[in-house]
Amino acid sequence: MTWSLERPIRVAVLGAGGLGRAACRLISAKRELQLTAICDSKSALASPEGLDSRSLGAGAGELGASRCDDPIGAVLGHAAWFDALLVTLPNMPNEFIPGVVGRAIDAAPGVVCVDVLKRTRAVELMYELEAGAKRTQSVVLTGCGATPGLLSAAAVLAAQSFIEVERVDIWWGVGIANWEAYKATIREDIAHLPGYTVERAKAMTDADVDALLERTNGLLELRHMEHADDVLLERVGVVQSQDQVEVGGVMDTRHPKKPVSTTMTLTGITLDGKRASHRFILGDDTTMAANVLGPALGYLKRGIWMKQHGLCGVFGSTEFLPMVVR
Amino acid sequence: MTWSLERPIRVAVLGAGGLGRAACRLISAKRELQLTAICDSKSALASPEGLDSRSLGAGAGELGASRCDDPIGAVLGHAAWFDALLVTLPNMPNEFIPGVVGRAIDAAPGVVCVDVLKRTRAVELMYELEAGAKRTQSVVLTGCGATPGLLSAAAVLAAQSFIEVERVDIWWGVGIANWEAYKATIREDIAHLPGYTVERAKAMTDADVDALLERTNGLLELRHMEHADDVLLERVGVVQSQDQVEVGGVMDTRHPKKPVSTTMTLTGITLDGKRASHRFILGDDTTMAANVLGPALGYLKRGIWMKQHGLCGVFGSTEFLPMVVR
Repeated sequence: MTWSLERPIRVAVLGAGGLGRAACRLISAKRELQLTAICDSKSALASPEGLDSRSLGAGAGELGASRCDDPIGAVLGHAAWFDALLVTLPNMPNEFIPGVVGRAIDAAPGVVCVDVLKRTRAVELMYELEAGAKRTQSVVLTGCGATPGLLSAAAVLAAQSFIEVERVDIWWGVGIANWEAYKATIREDIAHLPGYTVERAKAMTDADVDALLERTNGLLELRHMEHADDVLLERVGVVQSQDQVEVGGVMDTRHPKKPVSTTMTLTGITLDGKRASHRFILGDDTTMAANVLGPALGYLKRGIWMKQHGLCGVFGSTEFLPMVVR
Repeated sequence: MTWSLERPIRVAVLGAGGLGRAACRLISAKRELQLTAICDSKSALASPEGLDSRSLGAGAGELGASRCDDPIGAVLGHAAWFDALLVTLPNMPNEFIPGVVGRAIDAAPGVVCVDVLKRTRAVELMYELEAGAKRTQSVVLTGCGATPGLLSAAAVLAAQSFIEVERVDIWWGVGIANWEAYKATIREDIAHLPGYTVERAKAMTDADVDALLERTNGLLELRHMEHADDVLLERVGVVQSQDQVEVGGVMDTRHPKKPVSTTMTLTGITLDGKRASHRFILGDDTTMAANVLGPALGYLKRGIWMKQHGLCGVFGSTEFLPMVVR
């Protein structure tokens, strides 16, 4: 197989928070990609000639565009200007992004949609778009960030050496110097804390978040997270049951250094009856944004490849290798 | 995507040395696979109802079948009895397995062929089969063992976090209690030693190998190995140049414990300009056979999937995720 792009992939980014803006910078650095549309919750920007990521307004939620009532609709109205959609919107409630993607495949039939969803329930809802994706000849790739995404795909590789997989343990570390650049991401994580829900976390003011972090010295330690690595690994047969997958981690909201090294450990039994573990360990100097968005864009290119090869529908990050985007 | 097999994949194994026999045991343990043919250098066995791996003769090179002049031809003559070919023959000289696979796609058009080739030159020769594979609607998956294979696919994943990949370093450890069970594998490794060639290693008697190992206390340390991880990673754009990939390792021929942990380390630069390394580390208690043959069978199932989806040609292990074989 020697497959190469005939022209850059035109990408629309939905969501202009910390992740969305980092995605725009990464897209600018890739000659195979071109940013042609972006929106936040209040406004949208689009151009068939491409947008300069440096021209986007500097503040979170401030794109430097005039306000509109339906920014997502404004982007989807320019379906002829993009080949692929990268969804970096916060996903609260769980139904939100599946609803947006459902709308996208109707408004832009044939589109390639990639999300970096984290929650199991959200990814399950994405799979319900299968009939619509097939009908509209669209490709939906779901759970394509770091975890699920990079680490769950690594688990598929690791599983190959074993006759039976016992457990997949994902333990992540994230360090951010200033959580205010990732206001939505941090609320999605807080939603995993005991006593919190997606709704309660979403309703927190910045002062509420500050008060919570003051009590924890800036650290959030999360265990038994409802992360879609479980459903994605179950669907491809790496595990028989979702409770064989455990996701947790530590976020330091006051220092960019990771408090622990992000590690996927797969433990299984070999044909010889021995128990062993393969590990995939991310370098501490790679940021959460790099580990989420690099894979997302790699899957986006894979999605374009799939579309060109007539493969449509909803696919998880555990079903394909992402491609390298130059 | 929910794809499942309608019936077991019928597999022919070419080569009945240490790896070939271990492949038969692994195939027996998988309900999605059925062994229907096998050959060594002197004889062939085939049955449309399937072979019991326990009934294969116990000694290396002794299948318990009557001798024939062309055992590979005897297997290929029963093309209707298998869907896929796993090639575990020793590859000396480099042209040997590419020649066998070229013969297989002509004799069994539509077949899925998987090899566990190691040398760069051999994999380059496999890619020359592209036109023949497309013409015969066959799928050829090459370099699908541990390295290249499992570890080079892990490098494709690891590359996703970086804007530029500087190096891929693969350092493997293999421990075998008795090298005589892997007579061909060990000669392929000896061929990488300074002063040796594929031809010189192939010509060594067992006494020559013993004498060499006596001088090294049973250890073989190999550096700058000509391993096809380089061409496979260059083809998908993980590296720009093959000399960014370095493969080496240590084989202990007298102890089953690995002398070093097999590790793939990918070092790159992130969008933020930081240098970091992702690592994929295999559990010490997984054998060389498990790490070579598990991935090979996972790619074999992927090959059947590709065939069913109309994707024919020659593909490297860095282009797809292997599938989980139940």
